[in-house]
Amino acid sequence: MVAKVGIGIVGGGYMGKAHAVAMSAVGAVFNTNLRPSLEMVCATSKASAERYRVAYGFHRATHDWRVLVNDPSVEAVVIASPQETHLEIAEAAMRLGKPVLCEKPLGASIEDGARMVELAETHGVANMVGFNYIRTPASQFARKLIADGEIGDVTWFRGEHTEDFLADPETPANWRTTGQANGTMGDLAPHMVNAALALIGPIDRLIAEVETVHSTRPGGDVTNDDHGQFMCRFENGAMGQLYFSRVAHGRKMGYAYEITGTKGAIRFDQEDQNAIWVYRSHGDEATRGFVKVLTGPAHPDYLPFCQGPGHGTGYQDQIIIEARDFLLAIETGQPVWPTFRDGHDVNRVIAAAMQSSRDKMWKNVSHF
Amino acid sequence: MVAKVGIGIVGGGYMGKAHAVAMSAVGAVFNTNLRPSLEMVCATSKASAERYRVAYGFHRATHDWRVLVNDPSVEAVVIASPQETHLEIAEAAMRLGKPVLCEKPLGASIEDGARMVELAETHGVANMVGFNYIRTPASQFARKLIADGEIGDVTWFRGEHTEDFLADPETPANWRTTGQANGTMGDLAPHMVNAALALIGPIDRLIAEVETVHSTRPGGDVTNDDHGQFMCRFENGAMGQLYFSRVAHGRKMGYAYEITGTKGAIRFDQEDQNAIWVYRSHGDEATRGFVKVLTGPAHPDYLPFCQGPGHGTGYQDQIIIEARDFLLAIETGQPVWPTFRDGHDVNRVIAAAMQSSRDKMWKNVSHF
Amino acid sequence: MVAKVGIGIVGGGYMGKAHAVAMSAVGAVFNTNLRPSLEMVCATSKASAERYRVAYGFHRATHDWRVLVNDPSVEAVVIASPQETHLEIAEAAMRLGKPVLCEKPLGASIEDGARMVELAETHGVANMVGFNYIRTPASQFARKLIADGEIGDVTWFRGEHTEDFLADPETPANWRTTGQANGTMGDLAPHMVNAALALIGPIDRLIAEVETVHSTRPGGDVTNDDHGQFMCRFENGAMGQLYFSRVAHGRKMGYAYEITGTKGAIRFDQEDQNAIWVYRSHGDEATRGFVKVLTGPAHPDYLPFCQGPGHGTGYQDQIIIEARDFLLAIETGQPVWPTFRDGHDVNRVIAAAMQSSRDKMWKNVSHF
Amino acid sequence: MVAKVGIGIVGGGYMGKAHAVAMSAVGAVFNTNLRPSLEMVCATSKASAERYRVAYGFHRATHDWRVLVNDPSVEAVVIASPQETHLEIAEAAMRLGKPVLCEKPLGASIEDGARMVELAETHGVANMVGFNYIRTPASQFARKLIADGEIGDVTWFRGEHTEDFLADPETPANWRTTGQANGTMGDLAPHMVNAALALIGPIDRLIAEVETVHSTRPGGDVTNDDHGQFMCRFENGAMGQLYFSRVAHGRKMGYAYEITGTKGAIRFDQEDQNAIWVYRSHGDEATRGFVKVLTGPAHPDYLPFCQGPGHGTGYQDQIIIEARDFLLAIETGQPVWPTFRDGHDVNRVIAAAMQSSRDKMWKNVSHF
Ligand SMILES: NC(=O)C1=CN([C@@H]2O[C@H](COP(=O)(O)OP(=O)(O)OC[C@H]3O[C@@H](n4cnc5c(N)ncnc54)[C@H](O)[C@@H]3O)[C@@H](O)[C@H]2O)C=CC1
Ligand SMILES: NC(=O)C1=CN([C@@H]2O[C@H](COP(=O)(O)OP(=O)(O)OC[C@H]3O[C@@H](n4cnc5c(N)ncnc54)[C@H](O)[C@@H]3O)[C@@H](O)[C@H]2O)C=CC1
Ligand SMILES: NC(=O)C1=CN([C@@H]2O[C@H](COP(=O)(O)OP(=O)(O)OC[C@H]3O[C@@H](n4cnc5c(N)ncnc54)[C@H](O)[C@@H]3O)[C@@H](O)[C@H]2O)C=CC1
Ligand SMILES: NC(=O)C1=CN([C@@H]2O[C@H](COP(=O)(O)OP(=O)(O)OC[C@H]3O[C@@H](n4cnc5c(N)ncnc54)[C@H](O)[C@@H]3O)[C@@H](O)[C@H]2O)C=CC1
Repeated sequence: MVAKVGIGIVGGGYMGKAHAVAMSAVGAVFNTNLRPSLEMVCATSKASAERYRVAYGFHRATHDWRVLVNDPSVEAVVIASPQETHLEIAEAAMRLGKPVLCEKPLGASIEDGARMVELAETHGVANMVGFNYIRTPASQFARKLIADGEIGDVTWFRGEHTEDFLADPETPANWRTTGQANGTMGDLAPHMVNAALALIGPIDRLIAEVETVHSTRPGGDVTNDDHGQFMCRFENGAMGQLYFSRVAHGRKMGYAYEITGTKGAIRFDQEDQNAIWVYRSHGDEATRGFVKVLTGPAHPDYLPFCQGPGHGTGYQDQIIIEARDFLLAIETGQPVWPTFRDGHDVNRVIAAAMQSSRDKMWKNVSHF
Repeated sequence: MVAKVGIGIVGGGYMGKAHAVAMSAVGAVFNTNLRPSLEMVCATSKASAERYRVAYGFHRATHDWRVLVNDPSVEAVVIASPQETHLEIAEAAMRLGKPVLCEKPLGASIEDGARMVELAETHGVANMVGFNYIRTPASQFARKLIADGEIGDVTWFRGEHTEDFLADPETPANWRTTGQANGTMGDLAPHMVNAALALIGPIDRLIAEVETVHSTRPGGDVTNDDHGQFMCRFENGAMGQLYFSRVAHGRKMGYAYEITGTKGAIRFDQEDQNAIWVYRSHGDEATRGFVKVLTGPAHPDYLPFCQGPGHGTGYQDQIIIEARDFLLAIETGQPVWPTFRDGHDVNRVIAAAMQSSRDKMWKNVSHF
Repeated sequence: MVAKVGIGIVGGGYMGKAHAVAMSAVGAVFNTNLRPSLEMVCATSKASAERYRVAYGFHRATHDWRVLVNDPSVEAVVIASPQETHLEIAEAAMRLGKPVLCEKPLGASIEDGARMVELAETHGVANMVGFNYIRTPASQFARKLIADGEIGDVTWFRGEHTEDFLADPETPANWRTTGQANGTMGDLAPHMVNAALALIGPIDRLIAEVETVHSTRPGGDVTNDDHGQFMCRFENGAMGQLYFSRVAHGRKMGYAYEITGTKGAIRFDQEDQNAIWVYRSHGDEATRGFVKVLTGPAHPDYLPFCQGPGHGTGYQDQIIIEARDFLLAIETGQPVWPTFRDGHDVNRVIAAAMQSSRDKMWKNVSHF
Repeated sequence: MVAKVGIGIVGGGYMGKAHAVAMSAVGAVFNTNLRPSLEMVCATSKASAERYRVAYGFHRATHDWRVLVNDPSVEAVVIASPQETHLEIAEAAMRLGKPVLCEKPLGASIEDGARMVELAETHGVANMVGFNYIRTPASQFARKLIADGEIGDVTWFRGEHTEDFLADPETPANWRTTGQANGTMGDLAPHMVNAALALIGPIDRLIAEVETVHSTRPGGDVTNDDHGQFMCRFENGAMGQLYFSRVAHGRKMGYAYEITGTKGAIRFDQEDQNAIWVYRSHGDEATRGFVKVLTGPAHPDYLPFCQGPGHGTGYQDQIIIEARDFLLAIETGQPVWPTFRDGHDVNRVIAAAMQSSRDKMWKNVSHF
């Protein structure tokens, strides 16, 4: 039986919209048991909140997230506002027993995130973090291939999340250029760290280097990092290399990884998110090579979007898959991967990296 | 001001679902003036119609399309049922002055299509055909580049629509393997012919060859074509070459074109629908080559889906763009490209090709 | 036992040099029984011939090809001069029983070529035509895959030979822009027609369209064709589509083909000559796709160039492979593929296409 | 004026052959002033040396490199024998004032290399190291683009040299699996370190991790490293990340780099060595992206191999370019890049990396 569930979304910007669209579409796409009703949207001003209400089709609007969280029609909360707001909104919602889907990163600091995990676990409330890129059929399939042992034991992982929205030194300073949580390590790195943990497993230790490339810009100084890298060792013994940048000219959606195992390899680049390259070390040498597999009905969560292979899913579809999982979390009352704890585990890796960059030494992630 | 519009969809299969999802999402994506309300869905049986109603979130269901068309809450009709049904459903809707979005191809025959154009024009009702692939930001951009003269005068066009869903000779005969409108020329070719006409302009003459590769399959004989090709001359003088196949092993979404002009060239392959390759014949030879452009906010209809370039749109998003245009057609009462006439122009090219293949002679499209 | 063989090369330009280098390297690369000695080079003027002699390391030079052909130290002749000269040089050499490697196309006309075949067969002399592109390890491997039935029965072939050296309308008229044998159909098309015949087999019938895109250029009128296309039916039933152009902006070495069979497919583009893409229709759907195979020691004629796969061969290496085969022809006194007859078969296809383009009708190649 | 120069090559295996072929071809390709005469080849046994003599066309053979070095007809020496032999052969040749081209790496240890530099500088003899991959037209062009400031100040470098010849754990132990100089860091890493130094400049400090993945193999223990990585800081401030592996399934010639600057970016992968991808951050956003540039006459050292762009050069051609430079070194008596000192600078980076991996600390390269 299909039932309604009232959704409140805090934030109507980039991600607030994405979640609103996803909540509108998810029922028809996945034939979910719960069907979202867009109850209330919240933004910083009355005017903007009202604008979002109309644009996205919410019933009501507010500029005070407390109103949203407390409203009885709002049965579950999506937090799509800046990292500084994540903790208190999540706390309020969870104290009321309302499930929370919080955008990445989990809070504005590792302390925020730790607190959010604690609250979620204390209150036993469904919780999830918005790591959307790992939801593509391609990356879900990569996880499955590895888990099934198709490429053997993983020996090597290379990951990057690179974009170029601040590559031009003449781009003026803005809110993204201050505050650690808005820097590359705070903002972009979590996606790929999440991928690394999901694909390979926990990181044991790492050594990092993080820096600001353009320390001043028209309009002010830049106080957070432009790019960062780390080398690491996973608990399962694999070695790894990661890189994150917002100044990587030419890279628009450089969420990419290469994984080598003892029996094969996988390569993926989100700029062509509908293909995944798989190499297997058996068969005739003369016809061996990386297979360019186009995602299709044979891959996770593809078929609900289209019956034809290679027809392609896109960014918005990742958010729809996320919404499906969040509805499941609401329905069952259970946390769904990636939970706040998963988000916090990402934060711990980032914290270890920031500390390593300052100390110029290897750090054990378990100390964070 | 935002207003509701009642939508009825005939068909709940592959495309019926795609349109239902699109109608659910389009308002939030494009902030449209009209907001679709999913009033009624129709399918061949009561049970399936009811199943679709629940799955996609329609208010009511019927197994008689006349009920749907005549229902006063249904203000506009989407036809997503087989080609044989297009004409009579469209006719009934248009007689009531209800706008119609009809899936491709326009009717089961050129006669059907001609009649649909006549009816649409007589009744002055908004009408549109579902050529979705041309709606990608990439292909819209290609049209714009050519229209703006960026590659000069077009001298050459190569297009294909190739898939492999019937490439395996052991795939049993099914409804797709009988009926001309369900063959490759009837079913797949229209998409790429539409692209050719949109990108380059009308075709003057052509010579074609069409055939069935696997004439028997488990379960019966195949009575329509597996693949076909034609050479053509466009009215503007460009030469062209097209190919269509449902037996093209390895091709999953082979909607691809290459266009050469006197000042540059464009290449596109829908299997990587978020990239378009552009060559321009100026600048330093040492750094000249095809540019792999990733679609982004700088390209048509991308930004409403995502603020980040390279983040990608997918198949479903094409249908959402289509829905936006259909809402515009409803709102203004005007036909929106591609109209029934555009669909009929595609049918005329296909008819000329079929005749050419039989006669083994060049055919002027104007005779069809 | 290793023995010397005296080589004379007529022409010291683009191809004359390529053959001279190949003859210098082939022995060491392939450990051939015969070792070429660069005896004499011929060019139109004394000065240029002498320049070539020094540059390429020949013993002697002449500006009269008869001197070269008649010289007793010249035991085999490579013709790398313009098409107009092919017949008489070959005739003279063959009358003396000297093996001939003649650059493509075979003569300046179909009559020339026919005569050359006749002479070669009458005199029973080893003969070969310089279709070098088909010699890459990748294309040799493609031939083998098809011959071994790895992709089943071929149902479709698409081939092109496209370049852009005359794409700019401001490029002045030159010798290439007059004379049918120097046009695109005379000069570029033979390579890809040769590939089509080698990969798929004889062509039964075709219909073509050929034209001059830029009919005047600075310095004069253009009297031969800029691009041409044909559709064809092979004797084995496969359908095909070919395109040739010297005005294809962006294409530098567009010798490319796509072949579909009942069990798989092959794709190749000479612009990335060290990769061949192979699709096979078996195995798990989820990991099926085109395999990007990098050429290596597992492929024909690769190992002598390098022990490492993926390390790559280039244009010059194709000529070296050709030289190896010519040495074999000399050694055995037998024609080696592609022989003059093979070159003539290519010419017949081209002649049929030219006639078809004039008559605008299908032509049987057997009539040419 | 063209003059002969007598060449002796020590080693007739993989690289010995490559150099023999290169010496045979280089004169005709580059129209060099000096023309190599293949005087003598040396290998470990009489029989193999004689076999190589015949195969490659040397005048004489020996199994004692001292004979070769001392022979008056041998005017310059190419060392293509294992790293353990480099020092003493080079020393003997240089003491006689004979120019030396030594295969990479320079000696079996950093001490060997240091000694070779000292000898070369003391004796003032021409010297060069065989880093061939950096000689492709593409990589030479990349160097030029960076040197010309076309991508601004470099902020990021990622390089890898990955192959998979030991990826299969069942491949038996062999000479490559013992001895540090034969491990991945000794054998493969030098090529990419050389590239990093050439493209970006000296490395200031680094931190590395090196390990053996398969520590036993059929036939014995593996005593050197299978893969290794390091993070580094270049003297010019750029950050970098490098990875080297012989167990990277699917990678056949993974000599690849990505370079980001403040005004653009460059990407290259030797598996497609005839293309280089260039991004520049200016011009219209809608047509901006990485340009796939095919190498051609507009790029360094391409034209002598072929007049047509995109026609491609291969592995052997890199060695021919190297031979051209070595002939120049012989002719002028001057060292030519990359000299022994350049080879030693590579060794210093490797030594720093090995030490860093042991100590798990950052190391300044200047201390090595
Ligand atoms: N998963 C992904 O791909 C992405 C995730 N994000 C994450 O999503 C979150 C939101 O980022 P964007 O949507 O890019 O920001 P945005 O600036 O586009 O929108 C932020 C929204 O939050 C609202 N807001 C700000 N402070 C508020 C407050 N105190 N109370 C209520 N509403 C408030 C603003 O009015 C605005 O509507 C961040 O945590 C960010 O890291 C952002 C972009 C992509
Ligand atoms: N634009 C595109 O990419 C595509 C377009 N199409 C077109 O969409 C149309 C539908 O095709 P699919 O969705 O693939 O078919 P389908 O077989 O998946 O669904 C057809 C639907 O129509 C219903 N139907 C059949 N006869 C009916 C009747 N007489 N009255 C009411 N409902 C009826 C069926 O119950 C079913 O729900 C066709 O015209 C086809 O050519 C199909 C696939 C892709
Ligand atoms: N296989 C391939 O990839 C290519 C083949 N070709 C073919 O090679 C042949 C030569 O073409 P290119 O080398 O490009 O021409 P080119 O113009 O570079 O060189 C022609 C050479 O022939 C000499 N020559 C001309 N007339 C002569 C005569 N009557 N007697 C003696 N020498 C004469 C010239 O002095 C010159 O050295 C042509 O048949 C052409 O179609 C050309 C380019 C590429
Ligand atoms: N630049 C490149 O791409 C490559 C460079 N190399 C380097 O080239 C050198 C040779 O390696 P390969 O050719 O792969 O080895 P290989 O095993 O194929 O050949 C080695 C040759 O050296 C000879 N040799 C060994 N010990 C000798 C001695 N004491 N005196 C005289 N001759 C002796 C052997 O008889 C054999 O002919 C090494 O330094 C290696 O690192 C190897 C492969 C690729």
